[in-house]
Amino acid sequence: MSRNEPVPSFHPPRRLLMGPGPSDVHARVLAAMAQPTIGHLDPAFITMMDEVKGLLQAAFRTANALTLPVSGPGSAGMEACFVNLLEPGDTAIVCVNGVFGGRMKENVERCGATALVVADEWGAPVDPAKVEAALNAHPGARLLAFVHAETSTGVRSDAAELCRLARAHGVLTVVDTVTSLGGIPVLVDEWGADAVYSGSQKCLSCVPGLSPVTFGPRAVERIQGRKTRNQSWFLDFGLLTGYWTGGAKRAYHHTAPVNALYALHESLVMLLEEGLEAAWERHARMHRALAAGFEAMGLALPVAADWRLPQLNAVAVPAGVDEARVRARLLERWNLEIGAGLGALAGKVWRIGLMGQSATPTHVATCLAALDAVLAELGAPIARGEAVAAAEAVLFG
Amino acid sequence: MSRNEPVPSFHPPRRLLMGPGPSDVHARVLAAMAQPTIGHLDPAFITMMDEVKGLLQAAFRTANALTLPVSGPGSAGMEACFVNLLEPGDTAIVCVNGVFGGRMKENVERCGATALVVADEWGAPVDPAKVEAALNAHPGARLLAFVHAETSTGVRSDAAELCRLARAHGVLTVVDTVTSLGGIPVLVDEWGADAVYSGSQKCLSCVPGLSPVTFGPRAVERIQGRKTRNQSWFLDFGLLTGYWTGGAKRAYHHTAPVNALYALHESLVMLLEEGLEAAWERHARMHRALAAGFEAMGLALPVAADWRLPQLNAVAVPAGVDEARVRARLLERWNLEIGAGLGALAGKVWRIGLMGQSATPTHVATCLAALDAVLAELGAPIARGEAVAAAEAVLFG
Repeated sequence: MSRNEPVPSFHPPRRLLMGPGPSDVHARVLAAMAQPTIGHLDPAFITMMDEVKGLLQAAFRTANALTLPVSGPGSAGMEACFVNLLEPGDTAIVCVNGVFGGRMKENVERCGATALVVADEWGAPVDPAKVEAALNAHPGARLLAFVHAETSTGVRSDAAELCRLARAHGVLTVVDTVTSLGGIPVLVDEWGADAVYSGSQKCLSCVPGLSPVTFGPRAVERIQGRKTRNQSWFLDFGLLTGYWTGGAKRAYHHTAPVNALYALHESLVMLLEEGLEAAWERHARMHRALAAGFEAMGLALPVAADWRLPQLNAVAVPAGVDEARVRARLLERWNLEIGAGLGALAGKVWRIGLMGQSATPTHVATCLAALDAVLAELGAPIARGEAVAAAEAVLFG
Repeated sequence: MSRNEPVPSFHPPRRLLMGPGPSDVHARVLAAMAQPTIGHLDPAFITMMDEVKGLLQAAFRTANALTLPVSGPGSAGMEACFVNLLEPGDTAIVCVNGVFGGRMKENVERCGATALVVADEWGAPVDPAKVEAALNAHPGARLLAFVHAETSTGVRSDAAELCRLARAHGVLTVVDTVTSLGGIPVLVDEWGADAVYSGSQKCLSCVPGLSPVTFGPRAVERIQGRKTRNQSWFLDFGLLTGYWTGGAKRAYHHTAPVNALYALHESLVMLLEEGLEAAWERHARMHRALAAGFEAMGLALPVAADWRLPQLNAVAVPAGVDEARVRARLLERWNLEIGAGLGALAGKVWRIGLMGQSATPTHVATCLAALDAVLAELGAPIARGEAVAAAEAVLFG
């Protein structure tokens, strides 16, 4: 770009977001965010922060006092969990069945800790038997880390059982609920999960950039008992909680992302207006409709039915089809974004999101109709013209 | 909060922001941010990212290819500089003349490096003679870190001279320009600064939550020559540059804060429409007007005239005045936010910002008129009724 050439304002195209996130953001959330900025120490803002905390506690189903949105994306929330709970020389058992488990391993190692990997196939859930064996084999492990909803594969793992095993061995848990929070049950207190992080831009349908995190009493105790200083200043919960849970006497830590927090507040208000159970049921229903449509078209869903995430559907690319070309056409012609496969699944699956405001009958029908048209034109062997009717039967039949 | 009690939408009060940041955000920026979210890998978004990079290069006066907004507040940008450039066992010379120099020291130590502190009084600039002595005394130092514009005191330091000294000793520089960028000259290439970070919510008048960063060739070389892995995954520029500078083949790193980047784009478009020099001149002129008003009231500006930041004015609290009561009244009655003193200056000064969209004649006049009224009512010994006229004479006389 030449410095002499003026840059015009940016106006994004209008898309339908059905990838692995971000999801469509409701006009109420966009409007909330566009309200004038106020100071991060303004009494009115402090009141709103308290509400955000309460709303997040409700969304996470927890009474944890240390519940707050980290001022960065999900990866910052992930890193916050590990840098606060691990010290150099610690050992953590990390379950890897997709991209984000792999990222957890990276995080553990960058804390100077050792990651013992429990590996499962991409597309399969974490195997509790392997985890139990690892817990038995490594009694000194300090953490068990796993992904509840693997965004890279569309697989749910059994968080309740994995947390139960860890507790039975006196080991803390770090649980990634980036893609699950608001879409399927995330029951932090019922599970007894110790440190849980999520993201704003998936089933909460807020703008990307915030990472809700909650730490239970055992995790707080671990922080208080640290022998070494947290390697991150920005993510040090020992400092950050002075701002988020300091009552009237808030200690300045960093300048909070004021307008993004307006947006998170509104998205959580909307979630609780609908009700968590109702939101879970909506995601499940839209998933059944979309799956019925794919079956009618003859497209396979490679994840076993019991472990499919309703909010993120892995769909097998039909043989001989250039998957990138399909995505490009969906975007260009239909303004429809769906996701590519990642890592081991690159080129083999699409990832189709039904998250938050993107989990509606309109999204289901548009996706099926557009895929039907684009695949047929590219000569893919699908059954044409059946998909939307199959979805409709599930939704309204 | 009871889970059964519905939480209403949040509507912030309308404020005039004249604290140490955030500053007032223009309606164009708020409107840009409220545009619908699109995917972080959408071709339209990638084009916008390239524009943001070019706009930031123009704002920083640099040709550095590695120029990008970190997806977090200024403290994340600060941390990004240190975790990328330092390795355990390194030594860094850190200039401390206020809160943010102290934070730099914290960051250095959390990287497992040693911080050699060059201390100057709060309210004074960094002394180049002391820095030169430290560079001579510690030939093995890897970094010189200093704050260009200390937000905690309202003091500018001589960045050109400090960078010159570091270069003469073959030492890289990390420069905090959080409060300076857009308000006073930040001349990255002319200074030969190596790693420079800023914030979105000060003189750029964007919403808080992003931290523009630029790394020059020597800093990039330092990253490439690392012997140890970056302790942060989220802030690892070795990974992050695959997303921000990867051309058509962008590698997914984390989900970018899409809407906040719309806002940053628009704020930079506006800055360049005005012109950098014109923006610097506007900040200088508003400062002269505000200072003339304070002098007319009999309020002292403790920072020496040569080192005052036009965009952040430290004003001495008159003897016997409860400074917190004054701020509370300004907020309650006039919806005017000004800042308290921090650390060593707590209770002794107010910090009055004239940053970006908050650097206008209306802000200057409102601040002077409101302070005049509130201080007089509280019985402070000020000369009443002269301040706005004195400011007007500077602005329009």
